[in-house]
Amino acid sequence: MALFSSLTPVLVAIICVLIGVILKKTNAEKEKHETKSKPLSRPWVDEDLKDGTDHHLEEEEADEEWQGLDEKVAHVPFFAERYPEDEMIKRSKMFYELLNKRRSVRFLSDEPVPREVIDNVIRTAGTSPSGAHTEPWTFVVVQDPYLKHKIREIVEEEEEINYKKRMGDRWVNDLKRLRTNWIKEYLDTAPYLILIFKQVYGRLPNGKKKTHYYNEISVSIACGILLAALQNAGLYTVTSTPLNCGPQLRVLLQRPANEKLLLLLPVGYPKKDATVPALTRKPLEDIMVVM
Amino acid sequence: MALFSSLTPVLVAIICVLIGVILKKTNAEKEKHETKSKPLSRPWVDEDLKDGTDHHLEEEEADEEWQGLDEKVAHVPFFAERYPEDEMIKRSKMFYELLNKRRSVRFLSDEPVPREVIDNVIRTAGTSPSGAHTEPWTFVVVQDPYLKHKIREIVEEEEEINYKKRMGDRWVNDLKRLRTNWIKEYLDTAPYLILIFKQVYGRLPNGKKKTHYYNEISVSIACGILLAALQNAGLYTVTSTPLNCGPQLRVLLQRPANEKLLLLLPVGYPKKDATVPALTRKPLEDIMVVM
Repeated sequence: MALFSSLTPVLVAIICVLIGVILKKTNAEKEKHETKSKPLSRPWVDEDLKDGTDHHLEEEEADEEWQGLDEKVAHVPFFAERYPEDEMIKRSKMFYELLNKRRSVRFLSDEPVPREVIDNVIRTAGTSPSGAHTEPWTFVVVQDPYLKHKIREIVEEEEEINYKKRMGDRWVNDLKRLRTNWIKEYLDTAPYLILIFKQVYGRLPNGKKKTHYYNEISVSIACGILLAALQNAGLYTVTSTPLNCGPQLRVLLQRPANEKLLLLLPVGYPKKDATVPALTRKPLEDIMVVM
Repeated sequence: MALFSSLTPVLVAIICVLIGVILKKTNAEKEKHETKSKPLSRPWVDEDLKDGTDHHLEEEEADEEWQGLDEKVAHVPFFAERYPEDEMIKRSKMFYELLNKRRSVRFLSDEPVPREVIDNVIRTAGTSPSGAHTEPWTFVVVQDPYLKHKIREIVEEEEEINYKKRMGDRWVNDLKRLRTNWIKEYLDTAPYLILIFKQVYGRLPNGKKKTHYYNEISVSIACGILLAALQNAGLYTVTSTPLNCGPQLRVLLQRPANEKLLLLLPVGYPKKDATVPALTRKPLEDIMVVM
């Protein structure tokens, strides 16, 4: 018994050290998980805007060019329109002047806009190139006043949470801009809301997932073409990425699970008393480098 | 001694179990790390194309609209061009017909193109909206034949690795298309290569990092406008995302560390004998939903 008693402290000490090591490891892991998941729980981080191109990591194939992946497709001669040089210069200058008049407009009137123009503008966006010619876009055009108002409610509710959480940090500044940024009257007044969804994957005939390479880049490029087409038709919009609203809006608009909201564009004419911030654009020498 | 001996197996057993638990945990962690890092080590995954919007997770601020974040900016009345309805319909139709003629062209002639047109086209891209009006883009225009050839060498070398690795899986198909996809003659022949970099962050006057919200979406939208401007001027390109070449090309073109290559556009006229794959585009009803 004397020997047993004298051994017990050694035994206990060794076990304590080992238990300590295990507990430390477990804690460290927990902390790691917490650090990782913390940013995702912030109200103003839009899960929906995480890059869909991540999906291409799952597959064992990728391609760096954007068309003609299927080798069974025939190749045909291509004849392009060709303008004389002075005509090219003139056309490029006029197009710049047209697009340079574009501004993001938050004050949109409720005047009706011909549907045919919206159709043509979306047809134009659909001419965009896309990774492996997947055309991974869906343009949802909302004109129904009830649906527009539901969208407004969802967006404003999330915005209110965003702004109130942030007011803890910057409440003075936020108060000043609250009316402008949290209340989205244009979601009711604009005759059309165009919600652009990226299809993060598709389906093959055999039911397997089809990777949509670079789907976010593709759909964003299509949106650039859409903005040019709107400006060309004399229509205005504000490019918005509604925070945290993607999943709710996807359900409201009955879009399938492979589609994620990328952008929301209210489209219409500016109100008579519309204003814009007096911003300027960078001059050419600040955005272009010639080598 | 007898008691000590009889206790030893118990002690050893307990220690063995605890060591076993620790080893198991360590292994599990290693596996987790391996699973995570495995896709990144694949040769055809372009690190550069990971979404720069991740950066906004690091900051405690974000905004869902894209302009006018600075409340000191004055707001000014906005007067928009307005066309009669029949004119809007006509303009939108003509613009669609113009852009619908756009094709990705891989066979570009070496005929010179007026620099003024390139300047105007990039000016036009610079009118794009961007997250919080950060204008996070740099357009590097390469016309120097030596630099163009260096770019070709870098792109083709990476492509060769990509294709050879993939040939293990699909060598028959790949052999058929090898000439088309791995050899990039247009990188030498096109009079201009436009390499578009996204600025994943900027610098504030105090030297701190300035978050560029949604920089990848912003720059992709600008590229959509660029493609429309090229088509309007009668110039052709192929939208490419060179795999794994971003860092090398960034160094070659002496761009700073906050810039990541997004797209490479060779620009010029199509060759006389240029061909394109006989692809079609989805009809309007497949890309638009009206509610």
